[in-house]
Amino acid sequence: MSTDEQAIRAVIDRWMKASAAGDLDTVLSLMTDDVVFMVPGKEPFGKEAFAQSSRAMEGMKVQGESHPAEIKVAGDWAFVRNRITVKVTPKAGGETKTRSGYTLTLFTRGPDGAWLLSRDANLLV
Amino acid sequence: MSTDEQAIRAVIDRWMKASAAGDLDTVLSLMTDDVVFMVPGKEPFGKEAFAQSSRAMEGMKVQGESHPAEIKVAGDWAFVRNRITVKVTPKAGGETKTRSGYTLTLFTRGPDGAWLLSRDANLLV
Repeated sequence: MSTDEQAIRAVIDRWMKASAAGDLDTVLSLMTDDVVFMVPGKEPFGKEAFAQSSRAMEGMKVQGESHPAEIKVAGDWAFVRNRITVKVTPKAGGETKTRSGYTLTLFTRGPDGAWLLSRDANLLV
Repeated sequence: MSTDEQAIRAVIDRWMKASAAGDLDTVLSLMTDDVVFMVPGKEPFGKEAFAQSSRAMEGMKVQGESHPAEIKVAGDWAFVRNRITVKVTPKAGGETKTRSGYTLTLFTRGPDGAWLLSRDANLLV
């Protein structure tokens, strides 16, 4: 596995762990300022909208599992096809909702060399 | 607009026109042999499954419109965020079904220099 691939896997792991811990600042630090998120049935949205919807989930425990199916690095860009399962449970107790499926995600190397999430198509249902 | 970006736009145009004309051979010639298509709620699928589902649509008139929102070239890879509307109407007459939304698509430069569709996340609803 290349150093870049290891670094990208580490970013994904940090993202999943920070999400589970409700550490939004860390998650936001792992994406570019011009990030674009795409989900079915909505207009694409950026970093601020991501932050807002994450804050709206503060009452929820989010547990995610990620299994990269493919990582391809091309210079300062890379794409990942990732199989993800996300379980969301109200912290006050209640039903767990599970979504699973694939993402197609582009990472780019930031000015300090760190890989950042830049474009994300989320196909989870 | 760069030569590569023009070439990728031309591939997308050929794809849309060939789809509308029911010219599956041309559509298949515009993708890599190891292409991966991703849609919500299904396992990723490849070229043969794409061909099969296209053949199953032979009784349908397919009209697509494509408006690339973003094209980024990185060496022999490129990604496109594309806003697409697809209208499907039975050739024998009947109701038109419209789906619209975004795709995140990766193209790669083939051995002869031509750009080919390689990975596609389709978020149309």
